[in-house]
Amino acid sequence: MSKILRGGRLSPVRKDVAEFTSSIKDDAKLFNAVVQINTAHVVMLTEQSIIQSSDGAKLVQALTIDLEPKLNASSEDVHMAIEEAVIEKTGAETGGNLHIAKSRNDQVATAIRMALRRQLLDLMLSITKLQESLAQASERHLKATILAYTHLQPAQLVTFAHYLLSRFDALHRDFRRLQDAYTRVNVCPMGAGALATTSFPIDRKRVSELLGFDELLENSIDAVGSRDFLLETAAVLTLIAINLSQIAEDLIVWSSPEFGLLEIPDDFTSTSSMMPQKKNPEVLEVIRARAAHVLGDFVASAAAMKNMPSTYNLDFQEVTPKLWSALESVKNSVTILAQLIPNLRVTSDVSAKAAANFVAATELANILVREYNVPFRSAHKIVGSLVKSLLAAKQTLEDLSPEIVGKIAQSSAGIELSVKARDLISLSNPLKIVESHNVRGGPAPAEVRRALTARKKNLIAAKARISKMKQHLQQAEAALKLAAKFISQGEIPVNTKLKKEKLKVE
Amino acid sequence: MSKILRGGRLSPVRKDVAEFTSSIKDDAKLFNAVVQINTAHVVMLTEQSIIQSSDGAKLVQALTIDLEPKLNASSEDVHMAIEEAVIEKTGAETGGNLHIAKSRNDQVATAIRMALRRQLLDLMLSITKLQESLAQASERHLKATILAYTHLQPAQLVTFAHYLLSRFDALHRDFRRLQDAYTRVNVCPMGAGALATTSFPIDRKRVSELLGFDELLENSIDAVGSRDFLLETAAVLTLIAINLSQIAEDLIVWSSPEFGLLEIPDDFTSTSSMMPQKKNPEVLEVIRARAAHVLGDFVASAAAMKNMPSTYNLDFQEVTPKLWSALESVKNSVTILAQLIPNLRVTSDVSAKAAANFVAATELANILVREYNVPFRSAHKIVGSLVKSLLAAKQTLEDLSPEIVGKIAQSSAGIELSVKARDLISLSNPLKIVESHNVRGGPAPAEVRRALTARKKNLIAAKARISKMKQHLQQAEAALKLAAKFISQGEIPVNTKLKKEKLKVE
Amino acid sequence: MSKILRGGRLSPVRKDVAEFTSSIKDDAKLFNAVVQINTAHVVMLTEQSIIQSSDGAKLVQALTIDLEPKLNASSEDVHMAIEEAVIEKTGAETGGNLHIAKSRNDQVATAIRMALRRQLLDLMLSITKLQESLAQASERHLKATILAYTHLQPAQLVTFAHYLLSRFDALHRDFRRLQDAYTRVNVCPMGAGALATTSFPIDRKRVSELLGFDELLENSIDAVGSRDFLLETAAVLTLIAINLSQIAEDLIVWSSPEFGLLEIPDDFTSTSSMMPQKKNPEVLEVIRARAAHVLGDFVASAAAMKNMPSTYNLDFQEVTPKLWSALESVKNSVTILAQLIPNLRVTSDVSAKAAANFVAATELANILVREYNVPFRSAHKIVGSLVKSLLAAKQTLEDLSPEIVGKIAQSSAGIELSVKARDLISLSNPLKIVESHNVRGGPAPAEVRRALTARKKNLIAAKARISKMKQHLQQAEAALKLAAKFISQGEIPVNTKLKKEKLKVE
Amino acid sequence: MSKILRGGRLSPVRKDVAEFTSSIKDDAKLFNAVVQINTAHVVMLTEQSIIQSSDGAKLVQALTIDLEPKLNASSEDVHMAIEEAVIEKTGAETGGNLHIAKSRNDQVATAIRMALRRQLLDLMLSITKLQESLAQASERHLKATILAYTHLQPAQLVTFAHYLLSRFDALHRDFRRLQDAYTRVNVCPMGAGALATTSFPIDRKRVSELLGFDELLENSIDAVGSRDFLLETAAVLTLIAINLSQIAEDLIVWSSPEFGLLEIPDDFTSTSSMMPQKKNPEVLEVIRARAAHVLGDFVASAAAMKNMPSTYNLDFQEVTPKLWSALESVKNSVTILAQLIPNLRVTSDVSAKAAANFVAATELANILVREYNVPFRSAHKIVGSLVKSLLAAKQTLEDLSPEIVGKIAQSSAGIELSVKARDLISLSNPLKIVESHNVRGGPAPAEVRRALTARKKNLIAAKARISKMKQHLQQAEAALKLAAKFISQGEIPVNTKLKKEKLKVE
Repeated sequence: MSKILRGGRLSPVRKDVAEFTSSIKDDAKLFNAVVQINTAHVVMLTEQSIIQSSDGAKLVQALTIDLEPKLNASSEDVHMAIEEAVIEKTGAETGGNLHIAKSRNDQVATAIRMALRRQLLDLMLSITKLQESLAQASERHLKATILAYTHLQPAQLVTFAHYLLSRFDALHRDFRRLQDAYTRVNVCPMGAGALATTSFPIDRKRVSELLGFDELLENSIDAVGSRDFLLETAAVLTLIAINLSQIAEDLIVWSSPEFGLLEIPDDFTSTSSMMPQKKNPEVLEVIRARAAHVLGDFVASAAAMKNMPSTYNLDFQEVTPKLWSALESVKNSVTILAQLIPNLRVTSDVSAKAAANFVAATELANILVREYNVPFRSAHKIVGSLVKSLLAAKQTLEDLSPEIVGKIAQSSAGIELSVKARDLISLSNPLKIVESHNVRGGPAPAEVRRALTARKKNLIAAKARISKMKQHLQQAEAALKLAAKFISQGEIPVNTKLKKEKLKVE
Repeated sequence: MSKILRGGRLSPVRKDVAEFTSSIKDDAKLFNAVVQINTAHVVMLTEQSIIQSSDGAKLVQALTIDLEPKLNASSEDVHMAIEEAVIEKTGAETGGNLHIAKSRNDQVATAIRMALRRQLLDLMLSITKLQESLAQASERHLKATILAYTHLQPAQLVTFAHYLLSRFDALHRDFRRLQDAYTRVNVCPMGAGALATTSFPIDRKRVSELLGFDELLENSIDAVGSRDFLLETAAVLTLIAINLSQIAEDLIVWSSPEFGLLEIPDDFTSTSSMMPQKKNPEVLEVIRARAAHVLGDFVASAAAMKNMPSTYNLDFQEVTPKLWSALESVKNSVTILAQLIPNLRVTSDVSAKAAANFVAATELANILVREYNVPFRSAHKIVGSLVKSLLAAKQTLEDLSPEIVGKIAQSSAGIELSVKARDLISLSNPLKIVESHNVRGGPAPAEVRRALTARKKNLIAAKARISKMKQHLQQAEAALKLAAKFISQGEIPVNTKLKKEKLKVE
Repeated sequence: MSKILRGGRLSPVRKDVAEFTSSIKDDAKLFNAVVQINTAHVVMLTEQSIIQSSDGAKLVQALTIDLEPKLNASSEDVHMAIEEAVIEKTGAETGGNLHIAKSRNDQVATAIRMALRRQLLDLMLSITKLQESLAQASERHLKATILAYTHLQPAQLVTFAHYLLSRFDALHRDFRRLQDAYTRVNVCPMGAGALATTSFPIDRKRVSELLGFDELLENSIDAVGSRDFLLETAAVLTLIAINLSQIAEDLIVWSSPEFGLLEIPDDFTSTSSMMPQKKNPEVLEVIRARAAHVLGDFVASAAAMKNMPSTYNLDFQEVTPKLWSALESVKNSVTILAQLIPNLRVTSDVSAKAAANFVAATELANILVREYNVPFRSAHKIVGSLVKSLLAAKQTLEDLSPEIVGKIAQSSAGIELSVKARDLISLSNPLKIVESHNVRGGPAPAEVRRALTARKKNLIAAKARISKMKQHLQQAEAALKLAAKFISQGEIPVNTKLKKEKLKVE
Repeated sequence: MSKILRGGRLSPVRKDVAEFTSSIKDDAKLFNAVVQINTAHVVMLTEQSIIQSSDGAKLVQALTIDLEPKLNASSEDVHMAIEEAVIEKTGAETGGNLHIAKSRNDQVATAIRMALRRQLLDLMLSITKLQESLAQASERHLKATILAYTHLQPAQLVTFAHYLLSRFDALHRDFRRLQDAYTRVNVCPMGAGALATTSFPIDRKRVSELLGFDELLENSIDAVGSRDFLLETAAVLTLIAINLSQIAEDLIVWSSPEFGLLEIPDDFTSTSSMMPQKKNPEVLEVIRARAAHVLGDFVASAAAMKNMPSTYNLDFQEVTPKLWSALESVKNSVTILAQLIPNLRVTSDVSAKAAANFVAATELANILVREYNVPFRSAHKIVGSLVKSLLAAKQTLEDLSPEIVGKIAQSSAGIELSVKARDLISLSNPLKIVESHNVRGGPAPAEVRRALTARKKNLIAAKARISKMKQHLQQAEAALKLAAKFISQGEIPVNTKLKKEKLKVE
C-alpha cells in the first residue's frame, strides 16, 4: 500500500501484510509497459487539453528521462512505484495529474497485455525454429524406414521423416492457436478507469494506437475485469506442452536400448561412469515433466478466476505469475528441443524387426487383392493362416515361398494361387513397402518430400507474419516516442487531428 | 473384441474385460457419423475401382437401408457393430471389402470430429441466444443505475445495461474461440489408415469432401494420433464455463437480500415453506458448480494425453466421453441462463446507497478540476478531507453545501473555492453521474445504446455465419446421398472426375 | 422442488429448471441411507418424547414396510421423495412430524457419509485382493530375474517378485490412507439441522450410534458445510489411481516385443486378425487413462468447493457425483488388475541382455573392493576402463578374462591385480548377483521371501480390520431394526436410558 | 552433469542443457539433509567395517568441518556438489568411498523426506496458532449473535463464536491429516541404492535411526521410485488451502458494507484516498487466490507422476519444487490469517435484520409444537400463512400479536390458539433464540463454551505431540553428532552393538 494512497485514515501498513499482498517481485516484467502507458496517457491528456501542456511536458520528461522508481519489497506494485518516482521529480501538483482519468485497474490489464504480446511473438518465433529443425531433420531422413507402433506394439512401416513431419504439423496448429489468442490479447483496456471510464473527455483510441494495440477493449467493466486472455494463453500453452511431452515420450522410448531406434546426442543425456553405455535422456524427461507444470499453471489460473465477481479483485494479481511461469516453461522446452532434434540419429536396422513382427502381413494381403484378384476377405484369411503357420514354425515372413503361399491359399480359402517370388521378396524390403504408401499424407518419400516443400513455404509465411506483427509494435513505439518528444517540448497541439495523421504516416 | 477380429489364436474374451474396455455406451453419439464415413469410403473405393461396382452397390445398400447394428454391452465398439451388421446383410466376401484401406484408427478420429462439429455449431447458436437475451435485457435497463463493486466494496455507478453488455462482449470472445477451434476440428483424417495410409490408390480428398470437411488432415501419423482438437475444445469450454460462473456469482451476490440489487425470477429459485421470502438461487449455484466439472473434464483429458506415444493408444478412447460431458454441461448452463436473464428485475434504489458509500466522491474531484480549475492533486486532497469530515459526522455526500466545501478547500488545500449548489446537487443524481461517463465503452446510456446497436449487427452476422456453416454440412450430406444413390444403382463411374464436378455443383 | 416445499408463493417450477437442478439421478445411491436416517431420527424423537409414540409407530411402519417413493426425473431429490411417500401413507398430520428437528442439509451430509463408508470398505477389500494376487505372483517369481530400468535405460538386476512386492507396499500405504480417511468420513452430522441444530431436545449421540457412526461431527455449521471428507477421499483415490497407472505403464512397456520381458494373458489384450502376434494391452491402457479421470474428478470437486461460503450451497450437490465416479473408476481398475496379475508370464531370458547392457559392472567393482582390497575409487576407474574397452571391441562382460582385467587394472590404475576366474564367471549369473543383494529390502530371493511372509501376516490383519469395521456397521443396523421394531409396536419408552443400554448389549 | 560422473566417453555438457536439467536452485533446501545423510552413511560404513576407520574419520571430518560446496548454476545438483567438495578435501581415493553402497536415487528421496518432515511440523504448529486465535476470538464472541446464511440467503441465528469454532474444527481435521501424512513421510529409503540395494553388508536400520526416521521404507524399488508421500502432502495442503479460501470468502462477503457483519482491521485492507470508507480485503483475496495455486501445484505433481515407469526418472526432480511452493503458500496464508482473526470486529446489529428476514419463523413453529401442542404440520402451515400475511403488509415478525396469530391459526388450520405475548416477544430476541439451540454442537453460548473448553485441551495435546515429534528429531541429530565424533576421532568401533545401545540411551 503506497504512501500516496494510504493517506490519513488507515493505520500504517504492517510489514507482513505488505509482503503478503505485494506483487512487486513479478512486476518487473511490466515496468517498461507501465512507463509507456503513462507516457501515452499524458500525451493524450495534453492533446485533449485535459491537462495543461506545461504539465504534460514535465510529466513526459519525468517519465522518459532517468526515471528510477524503487522496486523493492516494500513497494506495493510497479504502478505506485512509478507514480511515486514521477511525483518526486515533478512535485505533487504536477505529478498528481498523472492520475487523472485512469486507474490501476485499467493500467495493469493494459500492461500485462503489452508484456504478453511480446512474449507471444517470441514464442511463435521459437516454434517456427523448432519446426525448422524438424523439417531439416525430416529432409535428412526421407528414406530412414522405422517401425511405427500402436499401443506400443509394432504396427507398420514408415520413415523417420514422416514421423518428424507429423510433429511439425501438430506444432503448426499450436502456432495458429497462439496467433488466434494474440488477436484477443492485443486489445486495449486503457481508459476503462477503475471500471466505469471517466467523465473527462479522454480519447481511448488515441492511447490504444500509441501503444500499438489493434483495437479497443470497449466495455469498461469487461476491460478491467476480464482475464480470459490469460486463461486462453495458458490453455494454448498447455496444449503445446502436451504436444512436446508426447515427442519427449516417443524419443525416450525409442532411444531405450530395447527399442534401439534412435540415439540421442551425448550432450543431451547423462550417464554413469560405471556403465558408460547408459544414456539417460534427462532433457526429454524434464520436457515431459514440465508439461505437468504448465497444466498446473492453467488449473491454478482457472480455479482462481472461477466464481470471481465482475470488475476487479486482488485475486487477479495472483493469476499473472502463473502465466509467466507457463510461458517460460514452454519457451525453454521448445528452445532446447529445437537444439536436440538436429542431432538425433536413427540407429536401427528395421528389416529384421519388421520381419519378426510380421508388419508386412497387411501388405501381403493387399498384394493378393490388387495383383491376384483375390477377394479381400479371402486374402485376409489366407494371410492370417500364413502368419499362424509361420509363428508355429518360429519363422518370419522372409521364409515365405510361392509354394507355401499356394498351399495355404488352397487349404484355408480353397483358392488356387500362384504368386510371383518377386512379390514376396518385395515384402522383405521395408523401403519398398513404405514407397507403396504414396497417397496424400502417406509416408512414401516422394509424398513426404512434396509435403516438406509445402510446409517450408508455410514456414516462411509464418515468419513473415511474425515480423509484420513485431514491426507494427515497433512503429507504435516510434510514434509514441515522437509524440512524447512533441509534448515534452511543450508544443501546444493546436491541431491534434492533423498531428495524429502525421504521426501515423511515419 | 469383435468376433471378426478375435479369430482363432486368442482365447475368447472375458466378460469383465469386455465391459472394462468397451466404449459402446458412449459410441451411440458416433453412430450416424460412422455410417456416413463407411458410405463415403465405399463410394470412393468404387469410384477409384478399388472394389467392383457390384460390391460397392451392395455395401452402400446395406449401409443405407435398414441397418440395424447391435449396440449392446458385449459389442466392442460402434465400428465393429456396424461392420458386423453389414457383413450379416451382404455376406462375408462382399462385406469384408468394407475393411479395405481403412482402419478403426482413422475412422474413429473422423467420426468424433463429425459429431463434434455439429455440437460446436449448436453451442455457438446457443451462445448467440444467450447474447440476444443479454442484449434485450440491456436495452430495457439502459437507465437502471446500479452500484458497481470492486473487491466487493462499492466503487462506482454504472447501469445494469452496461453490466449486461460487458457479459455480452465476453461471450463474443468465447464465440470466436469456438469458431477458431472449429477450423481445427473440421479437418478429415480418413485415409490415414492405422497410421500409415495404404498402398491402395484411395482418394482422400474425395472422402473428405463427401463428409463435409473443409480440409484434409494430411500427415497420417498426425491424423490418427492427434487429439489436440479435443483438448482445444475442452479448453474453450472451460473458458466459457468460467465466464458463466462469474455471471452466476454476480447474480447470486446481487440477489442476496443484503445486496438487494436484483430479484431472480421465482421459477428459477427454490424456497422454504416456512420462510417464503427466501429465494435460493439454485440454478445459478448449479451453473457455478458446473464450471468446476468442465475444468475437471479438461484436466482429465489433458492428463490422459500427456506422455502418450504417437499414433494410437486406447487411452484416447477414454478422453472422448469427457468431451461430451463438458459440452453437455456448458450447453445446459448457457441454455438455462438464456432463459433466466430476461426475467431479472433490478430492485434497488441506488441513490441512498450511492450517497452512503460516497461513490460520487471521485466525480466531485473531477468537477473541481474541470469546472473550477483546481489542480487535480488539490482537488483530491479537498475531497478526501470532505469525506473524512462527513464520515466523522455520520453524514453523506448529500449533506454537502457550498459553504462546507469552501471551508474545507481552505483548510485542507489553502484554496479559495466557491462551488455552485447545482454542481453539488448533480452528485446526488446517480443517472446524471452515469451520463457524464460517456467516453467510448463507458456506461452513459447514449454510449451503451450505440454499443448495443453495433453488437446487434454483429449478432446477426454471427448467426449468418453459423447458418452458412450448417448449410455447408447439409450440402455435403446431400452430395453423399446422391453419390450413394448412384453407386447403389450399380452405375459404373465411367468418368469419375466429371461426376465429382457435377456433385459439387448441386 | 417438491410440492411440499413449494407451497403457494412461488409459481410452479419450470420443467427445464427442475431437470437442471435435480440430483435425483445420483440419489439412488443414497436411498437406503436416507430411509435409515429417517428411521433412526423417528426412534430418537419418540424416545425423547418429542413426538408421541403413536406417531412414532406409524412413521416407523411407513418407513420400514413397503415404502415406494417415486424417484423420477421430476422429483427434486431422494429426501423429498421419501418424505412425500411417508406422508402419503400416514397422512399429513403424522407424516409432517418426520420433518421435526432435522433438515435436508444435515440429512444429505449424513447419507453421503453412510453410502461412502460402505464403498470405502469395499474398496479396501478390493485392494487387499489385488495385494493378495501380487503376493501370490511374487511367490511364484522369487527367482525370476529381470532387468530393472531407470530412465527406461537398463540399470540393475532384480527379480519380478521384488518388483511385485514394491507395488504391494505402495498399495499398502494407499490402504492406510483409506483407513485414515474413513475415520473422518464415519462421523455423524445428523441433528445439525439446516445449520444451527434445533431448539427441540434431540439426542444427537443416540442417532449417531443407531446409524453406526464412530463419533458425532459436533459443530453444526461444520456438520452441514464441510465437504473435506469428500475431497480427502477423492484425493486418496487419485493417489491410488496414479499408483495403478504406474503399474499399467510398467506392464505396457515390458510387454512390448521390444522389451519382451512379460507376456500379458491373451484374454486381457486385443489383437489384429492379420497380425496375430500383436497383443494390444487394452486393459492396461484403460487403467492408465482412468487415472486421469480420477484426477479430473478431484479437480472438479476441489474447484467447486474453493471459495464456497460456509453452511450450505447447492454447489455441494454437484460435487457428490464426482466422488461416486472416482470411486467406480478406481474400484473397477483395482478389480480387473487383480484378475490380470496372476496370469502374467515372465518370458525374457535376462542373461544375454544383462551382459549386453553391462548391468553387472557395478557388481564387478564391488567385488574388486570387497575381495581384492582395491580402493573403491580405483575399482571404479578400472571397471569404467574395462567397459569402455569391451564396448570398443563390441564385446560384453561375458568376454572378460582374468588377464584382461589384470591388464586394464595396470594400465588404468597402476594396480597389480589377479582376479579369480570364478569371480568373473559369477558376473554372468544374474541370479547370483541378485542373491548377493540380500540386505533388508533387497531383491535377494531369501530376503523377498522373508518380506513376503511378513506382508502376508499384515494382509490377514488388514482383512480382519475390514471385517471388524463391517461388523460394527451390521451391529448398528441390527440395533436400529430392533429399536424400530419397539417403536413401531407403540411401546412407550418408559425408561429410555435402560432400553438404550439393552440395545447396545445386543 | 558433474565432472565425476561425466568421465571420458560423453562430450562435455552444454551450458543450455545443464541449466535446463539442473535442480540446483531448489536444492538449497536439501543441503543440510544431504550432509547429514552422508555423515550417517559414513558412520554406518565404518561401523560395518565396509570402509576403514581412517577413511571414515577423514570423510566425517570433511563433511562436518567447514564444508563449502559450490552450489552454482553449473552444478548438476546438491548431491554432486557435496561429493565434489568432500573429494576436494580428502583426495580422490578416500573421498571416492563416500560413494560406496549408495546412489543419488536413494539419497534424494531421503533428503526430501528430511526437509519435508521439518516443514510439516512447522506447518502443524502454525495451524495450532491459527486455531488458538480462532478459539480466543470465539471466546470473546460467545454472545455475538449473527445471521447465518445458506445459499447466501439469511437462514438462522448463530453466534460469531459458533462460526469461528466451526473453522477450528475443520482445521483440526487438517491437522490430523498432516499427522497421518507424516507417518508416511518419515520413513527411510537410504540403502536402496539406485534401485536394488547393494551387495555390501550395510545396516539400513542404523542409518535410518541416525537420521531420525521412524521406520525403514523397505522394498528398494519402492524406496527410490515412490513419490506418493509428496502427492499426499500436496493433497492435504490443497484441502487446507480450500478450507482457508472458504474462511476468506466468508470474511470478504461479511465485511462488504452490504452485509456489514464484520469489520476487517485497517492494517489488513487497502483503501482509496478518495473514498476512505472503502476497505478492500486484499489479504483475504490473496489467501483465496492462493488456494488455486496450491491446487495447481497438486495437479502439476499428480500429472507428472501419472504413467511414470517404476524406479527413477528425472521427471521426479520436477515434482519437488511444486511441493515446496505449495507448502510456502499454505504456510504464509495460515500465518497471516492467524494475525488477522484476533482483530475482527462484529459490527452488525442483528435484530433488525433478523426480523426483516423472518429468520425466527422456524422457531415460532417450534414453539407452537412444544408449548401449545399444535401438530408440527399445522404449526408449519400457520407460520407459513403468518409470514405471507406479514410480507403482504410489509411487516416483520416484530409486528406479531397474539390476536393475529390466533386469527391466522383459525383461518389457515382451523385451530383455536391463544399464544402468550411473552412467547412472541422472545422471537425478537436473537440471543434468546440462539440460547434455545443448546443441543450438542449447537450455537447456544453455554454449549459453545463447553466445546471451547474441550478444544483448548485438544490444542494443548496437539502442541505436545508436535513437541515430542520435534524432540525425536533433535535426539537423532544429537546421536548422529556423537557417532560422527567417535568416527572422526578414528575410534575403531570394536563393539558396534554396544556403542549403538549407548547412543540410544543418550
